[in-house]
Amino acid sequence: MRSDCPLNFGLEIFGDKWTLLIIRDLIFFNKRYYNEFLNAEEGISTNILADRLSLLEKQGIISRKKDENHKQKIIYRLTQKGIDLLPVIIEIGLWSDVYAGDLLNEKRDLILGEAKKDKTKALQSLRERLIEEHLE
Amino acid sequence: MRSDCPLNFGLEIFGDKWTLLIIRDLIFFNKRYYNEFLNAEEGISTNILADRLSLLEKQGIISRKKDENHKQKIIYRLTQKGIDLLPVIIEIGLWSDVYAGDLLNEKRDLILGEAKKDKTKALQSLRERLIEEHLE
Repeated sequence: MRSDCPLNFGLEIFGDKWTLLIIRDLIFFNKRYYNEFLNAEEGISTNILADRLSLLEKQGIISRKKDENHKQKIIYRLTQKGIDLLPVIIEIGLWSDVYAGDLLNEKRDLILGEAKKDKTKALQSLRERLIEEHLE
Repeated sequence: MRSDCPLNFGLEIFGDKWTLLIIRDLIFFNKRYYNEFLNAEEGISTNILADRLSLLEKQGIISRKKDENHKQKIIYRLTQKGIDLLPVIIEIGLWSDVYAGDLLNEKRDLILGEAKKDKTKALQSLRERLIEEHLE
């Protein structure tokens, strides 16, 4: 049931691990195509992926357009609203970094290395890169 | 499937809207008892609530102890690991505040008023209150 709580507003949209993993792939792994998302190591199923991409587009968090080089392919990109989820993603990562113990490996540094040194600076430079790459 | 991604580590635990809504209730609405969580306006079902409380306890994010005044009642509280989720919750709230338009009402200020003025200060004072109230 909907409520008037601001947290619930966000969670209704992306309070689901697959949604945030797709956003992670767009931000950190430069994925743009359906098949690239499908190959995430968490093993997302094709019907969940299609559902979440459609939800994210409907909510204005990602955009889709035809690839100019391969007309039959669709390119997915973040919108400004999607890029603005960066602080949420980074805070989840930093929390996990503290509590995951030795579980994590080199990806930890790929995603979190800069943020652990200087969060404000890392957010700023990630945001700039994403605006350049995702918004025309 | 588990992966070695730091984001997935966190999302495996709380990448579900009900889990974060329980944590919201502990942080902002001072709920401590099963029946109080059950009465959240989002309408959580009793079986999902029981499942998520058990998951959160198993993950060390909340603790449970007997109420000294009513021996048959259980009090749920946050652990340090749970309190450390504050920045995640606040960032979700701030994002929602930007994009929810006029949807939200007075709860917005209850939860986000301080954070919108000065995020660092709001986090600090919330953290201090939670440590006092939840950790002995």
